[in-house]
Amino acid sequence: MTDSKRKGTAVILLSGGMDSATALAVAHRHFRRVDCLTMAYGQRHLRELQSARRLARHYRIAHHHVLELPLGQLLRSALTDVRRPLPRAQTERKPARIPATYVPARNTILLSIALGYAESIGAASIFIGANAIDYSGYPDCRPKYFRAFERLAGLATRAGVERGHSIRIEAPLLHLSKADIVRLGERLHVPWELTWSCYAGGRTPCGRCDSCVLRARGFAEAGIPDPLSKRDHIRSRRVTPR
Amino acid sequence: MTDSKRKGTAVILLSGGMDSATALAVAHRHFRRVDCLTMAYGQRHLRELQSARRLARHYRIAHHHVLELPLGQLLRSALTDVRRPLPRAQTERKPARIPATYVPARNTILLSIALGYAESIGAASIFIGANAIDYSGYPDCRPKYFRAFERLAGLATRAGVERGHSIRIEAPLLHLSKADIVRLGERLHVPWELTWSCYAGGRTPCGRCDSCVLRARGFAEAGIPDPLSKRDHIRSRRVTPR
Repeated sequence: MTDSKRKGTAVILLSGGMDSATALAVAHRHFRRVDCLTMAYGQRHLRELQSARRLARHYRIAHHHVLELPLGQLLRSALTDVRRPLPRAQTERKPARIPATYVPARNTILLSIALGYAESIGAASIFIGANAIDYSGYPDCRPKYFRAFERLAGLATRAGVERGHSIRIEAPLLHLSKADIVRLGERLHVPWELTWSCYAGGRTPCGRCDSCVLRARGFAEAGIPDPLSKRDHIRSRRVTPR
Repeated sequence: MTDSKRKGTAVILLSGGMDSATALAVAHRHFRRVDCLTMAYGQRHLRELQSARRLARHYRIAHHHVLELPLGQLLRSALTDVRRPLPRAQTERKPARIPATYVPARNTILLSIALGYAESIGAASIFIGANAIDYSGYPDCRPKYFRAFERLAGLATRAGVERGHSIRIEAPLLHLSKADIVRLGERLHVPWELTWSCYAGGRTPCGRCDSCVLRARGFAEAGIPDPLSKRDHIRSRRVTPR
């Protein structure tokens, strides 16, 4: 799509991970203006915030808001509570229950703040890099959840009441496998080296958490090298004595 | 209702105004444990926060969380933007459009954070002092909005998915006039002197904003004196030279 066909304004929830980076690439292709919202809600992986900033710079985003939400103590989850152990690669088998990394009402909180912002600037759509396949255990990653939120948005906002049209919730990765996301991102030239997926929050990806395992599998299945993983490999070769 | 009949846990959005104070009195009558959430989102009336703290102390609330949400710059409204003038008593005539004091997606943001907290502590209900009569111009104060949010809560949470029951959204004042709220609060011994309604954020109520006008009318129609107004009257008599 050429620049002249891009129109309107969208808001995107940008975490800094590979999914939201790919969703940003999709939004950037279709909208003239894309504003980014990044929320820090006491999660372990503050490293992601740095990636979000780099991605926003890469896409020349004029409005990128990074918000500190003081929700760490309120919401109980392994992702926000440093005392709870991180589960390792639950993705090995299909989880029967909701994973420990599920943050209560996470997407509802993020989408509602995005909704307030979208209404304030007159945006037509909110993009979110949610995925119903890898995160099938999360109640707020299911298609019917997003449909319900979009209905709510129609009732909750000025646009819905006065002009009868709602702000759309766009989850372009919802039905894609991780390999499909890598292929789509590759086609859209997503700068994978700027993204961050690891839950553990170290300087290099731990390679063992859910998110690292999913990422590695996605790149492997798509037959595309992960520059982040390669870079780490080169760095580790440099410091290891031969 | 006696103490022995109170059971379960509820979460309430406590602003410090007379409506949320009355909703707290209702919740306190029915639930053994009531946790309070007060959100400061850059609104003008920080004076309300002090009232929320005093009300929580009055009801001996064990868990009262006051959260600073950095949303003031994101959400455009006369309530959060100090540069926009506050409208005076729009309530004189039924507003045809959504009032300038409407904060985009306000109730959706507040309810979604309450939802995450309610899920974290296993609460059955979320109380909100919303009113569909005085705030008929606000899209997110309508009964169908709250029904939609409750449906969303059923889809968004662990309780909804694993146990098939949703966290309830309780808006006990939804269909009451301001005079009815005063009568209900009076019956439940709400300490009106601890509440705060004025939007203007001064030391004493301005008496001219929407909220002051609604409050005065409610007390007058119920035939009950407003201790806050009386106290102000006494104070003003003291400092005025005779």
